Amino acid sequence: MNQMRGSGSLCFSKAPFIISTASVVGKKEGEGPLKDCFDVIGSDEKFGEENWEAAESALQKEALTVTLGKAGRKAEDVRYLFAGDLLGQTIASSFGLKEFEIPLFGLYGACSTCGESLSLAAMQIAAGYADCVAAVTSSHFASAEKQFRFPLEYANQRPKSATWTVTGSGAFLLASEEQTKKWNMNPIARVTGVTTGKIVDYGIKDSMNMGAAMAPAACDLIYQHFCDFKTSEKDYDKIITGDLGTVGSEILVDLLREKGYDISSVHEDCGVKIYDGETQGTGAGGSGCGCSAVTLSGHYLKELKEGSLQRILFVPTGALLSTVSFNEGQSVPGIAHGVVIEHV
Amino acid sequence: MNQMRGSGSLCFSKAPFIISTASVVGKKEGEGPLKDCFDVIGSDEKFGEENWEAAESALQKEALTVTLGKAGRKAEDVRYLFAGDLLGQTIASSFGLKEFEIPLFGLYGACSTCGESLSLAAMQIAAGYADCVAAVTSSHFASAEKQFRFPLEYANQRPKSATWTVTGSGAFLLASEEQTKKWNMNPIARVTGVTTGKIVDYGIKDSMNMGAAMAPAACDLIYQHFCDFKTSEKDYDKIITGDLGTVGSEILVDLLREKGYDISSVHEDCGVKIYDGETQGTGAGGSGCGCSAVTLSGHYLKELKEGSLQRILFVPTGALLSTVSFNEGQSVPGIAHGVVIEHV
Repeated sequence: MNQMRGSGSLCFSKAPFIISTASVVGKKEGEGPLKDCFDVIGSDEKFGEENWEAAESALQKEALTVTLGKAGRKAEDVRYLFAGDLLGQTIASSFGLKEFEIPLFGLYGACSTCGESLSLAAMQIAAGYADCVAAVTSSHFASAEKQFRFPLEYANQRPKSATWTVTGSGAFLLASEEQTKKWNMNPIARVTGVTTGKIVDYGIKDSMNMGAAMAPAACDLIYQHFCDFKTSEKDYDKIITGDLGTVGSEILVDLLREKGYDISSVHEDCGVKIYDGETQGTGAGGSGCGCSAVTLSGHYLKELKEGSLQRILFVPTGALLSTVSFNEGQSVPGIAHGVVIEHV
Repeated sequence: MNQMRGSGSLCFSKAPFIISTASVVGKKEGEGPLKDCFDVIGSDEKFGEENWEAAESALQKEALTVTLGKAGRKAEDVRYLFAGDLLGQTIASSFGLKEFEIPLFGLYGACSTCGESLSLAAMQIAAGYADCVAAVTSSHFASAEKQFRFPLEYANQRPKSATWTVTGSGAFLLASEEQTKKWNMNPIARVTGVTTGKIVDYGIKDSMNMGAAMAPAACDLIYQHFCDFKTSEKDYDKIITGDLGTVGSEILVDLLREKGYDISSVHEDCGVKIYDGETQGTGAGGSGCGCSAVTLSGHYLKELKEGSLQRILFVPTGALLSTVSFNEGQSVPGIAHGVVIEHV
């Protein structure tokens, strides 16, 4: 029986292992500070495909293929697949993953989907429903710009608060302790708990300042997590948000200070980590489902495996909007999902 | 411990109850054969809102509110919410459900989302992760037409194979047996098992013939379910697909005959059930996430509660496409999710 904590939180008595992961990114991400971390860096932003959406599907397909390959597993070994992306009707996932023929739960949590997919994957394994589950998410700069902002050819200017959608996909293979032993595998890390987020709406209406829209949701999630687990920032080597960027990160730290927690010394943001804002012209930082996924996969999971990180709280953040809702004058609510990942 | 069956299937040893449900539909659905079944029939297709998307959000909000009200529960009693819709970035759910402040897992499974949400809701309760979980899905004729086909003002003609997107939202409250007793509630039915579907792509490229695109996925799901549970059509009072319509239903029956099963005597389709095709001009039948949700909620769950149905296999079906993927020449893959629901 898994210990149930407070609102939306679970603490696993039999914590699932992350047994394999892979990150596939585009050229720009492959020139950034994390360039040595990724498994595959594409030289062609279209990844050999005819259009941006198919390119994003190719990212997901490659990420899952490499993840399975690293683990020496086949698609048939995976009982469930949790996957999603930012595109309307999540077409990057549908077309990228259909050939694997794995029972699929399609997800949409905007840029928080990596956290949502890892949470649900871990929950099904800890429940004994599956021995091995995969989680895959992606984003692509060009397919996202086309959908949410302007076509690339328009060459619009961007405010400094705007983020840069990461071209990348991260895939994760989770397994039970028994299955990991049976396959004689050396686990990367373990997922020991999750906190599931609510929609938080501060009424922000600036789609060029997603960090500000998502920071309240991240604050709410982290605060709820501390309450449910009776922990504080002192219990984590790092608290890692998904894509708040520089602007949103500052807001998050301030909001949590108001609640009595100072996370400034342990907080990092995948969107800040993945690009060099000074030289890469990426505004407030990276964003997208792929941002947190590839940064966790390529960077943080290596540190967790080596033991230079013992325990992190990973908090992908999502801005819930579409061009339709935005043009109809709706606000941009946020959501965040928290996953506790520990060194084995 | 829940008994694990074959590929993607689970059979719950402690099967969760459906303790409350509500259906909210539009005017056309309220004039169809099931008009006496629904809880709320809107007289205004905009449900008092300014635009179609907000109207769809209002449907979800109303459906969950009525469901909670029937059960005498508050949002705080619900530990998780599984929800989705057809719109890009699932905005109907985000804006319709944000005020409930329930930890949310956003889903996208096209019109199969009702099955996906019920599956995941039941799984979390059976795992002991939650005592009470809600599942909500919706569609709206006008928001779907605007997104997937033509603006209503264009007044395009439709081929007979085209389906008519249902304006409606169905909400379900699931609870553990212990919680149901504690709340002293009379359950409606119980979810005893699930089979999770894979993406099936027969290469259909006609977005005006979704039934044909989804029938192979429904066939694959039902066949897999029979194999995993060692059952056949004889073990179910009804096998109910989501929105294959008349065209897709015929294809499904034919495809399953080729596999040795004749479901013709027990098969029904929510899309065929919800409209009178002769008088309502709805082409091949109803479709959309809301179609299967309101038909299960308003019609089949009543029969299950009364006992005139003892056991059904409920199979919402989804067509995985967007206008972008379609215009780029991609096929329309299908997916289906199966839920076994039994009389208590």
